[in-house]
Amino acid sequence: MKILIIGASGHAGRAIFKEATRRGHKVTGLVRNEARAHQVLGKDAKLIIDDAFNTKRVDLGRFDVVIDAFSTDPLQAYLHVDLCAHLIHELRESRGPRVIFITGAGSLLDKHDQPFVDTLAKLPTAASFIATPHAQAFELEFLRHVDNVNWTAFSPSATFQEGPATDYVAGGDHLLANDAGESVLDSGNLALAILDELENPQHSMKRFTARNA
Amino acid sequence: MKILIIGASGHAGRAIFKEATRRGHKVTGLVRNEARAHQVLGKDAKLIIDDAFNTKRVDLGRFDVVIDAFSTDPLQAYLHVDLCAHLIHELRESRGPRVIFITGAGSLLDKHDQPFVDTLAKLPTAASFIATPHAQAFELEFLRHVDNVNWTAFSPSATFQEGPATDYVAGGDHLLANDAGESVLDSGNLALAILDELENPQHSMKRFTARNA
Repeated sequence: MKILIIGASGHAGRAIFKEATRRGHKVTGLVRNEARAHQVLGKDAKLIIDDAFNTKRVDLGRFDVVIDAFSTDPLQAYLHVDLCAHLIHELRESRGPRVIFITGAGSLLDKHDQPFVDTLAKLPTAASFIATPHAQAFELEFLRHVDNVNWTAFSPSATFQEGPATDYVAGGDHLLANDAGESVLDSGNLALAILDELENPQHSMKRFTARNA
Repeated sequence: MKILIIGASGHAGRAIFKEATRRGHKVTGLVRNEARAHQVLGKDAKLIIDDAFNTKRVDLGRFDVVIDAFSTDPLQAYLHVDLCAHLIHELRESRGPRVIFITGAGSLLDKHDQPFVDTLAKLPTAASFIATPHAQAFELEFLRHVDNVNWTAFSPSATFQEGPATDYVAGGDHLLANDAGESVLDSGNLALAILDELENPQHSMKRFTARNA
């Protein structure tokens, strides 16, 4: 597949970039900082250096899949929503690429069916980061109103961290945890989950999640 | 004030254009069809001929107020949401123009505090139009997640029709009706309500409504 990764030098983006390349897909990264991207993804990484908001239907249409792994400072958390809306607008009714949005864990439901973001909002440090899970939760709400683009959203587990591709357990709209109660997803396992979904679509027009196995 | 009206040749747009001009404001219409706009707004109407999605921060920033009176076929109702998202994105944190969104009546609450769109959805003809009130209701939901643009949304009454500027009664989030139970707003009175709001802001970061007096 021809895969475009927006935000390819971020934590999620680079892991997906590497796993997709390893599996033989033709991967292009769309990034703002060329030097940083080559540093993270290698000298030979195929890149488009641009602002993701400049992408148009014609550019996106050259790919089979677009992965939105954009990340930004919590002060500009609204850009998660805005970029989602931009990409959706450009792809409406296009029969164009499938789009995967890497959203946060905040919109997942806890065992009481309450949004995990409500728990996050009670943390003493919430003010420094809560804008991001709030924006990403609304990003998912936005997608749930979209019926004319082939979208999928992915939420990691409560803790998302750098780590190897080993194995993962997938889920739907609920926060996953292992038997010890730990809800953790390593970046390598995120990449496995995303690539498996691309090669064997199971979650079209849905959100799914994964945790380390 | 310098006022830009998107969709100036539509029913709401043209009424606002005329009332704003009558009150001495500098009004520009942004339209796609120049000939139709001149026919509706007069030969001397100041126009920008473009797709509203091409507007950028720098263009919008030349105005004190941007009014989104865009309308479209129910088959493309999603464009209400997309254009709202586009304008909001271009104006985030800009301290730029105030933006007024003319949305539908569907998001107003009835006397049982239920969204009026739920009543509309039960009409036998709903399939032919319901996409528009659904999209406009989500447009308002989108705006309610925006805290860094000076937005106002306006909903007409259950029936919005061509008619003169006489007098109006304003309200908030509930569908208004007169003593006879009629919920009607004429285009001339919509224009009065909008221009009064521009000259004497009362509903920043809120939605308001109006009915014929």
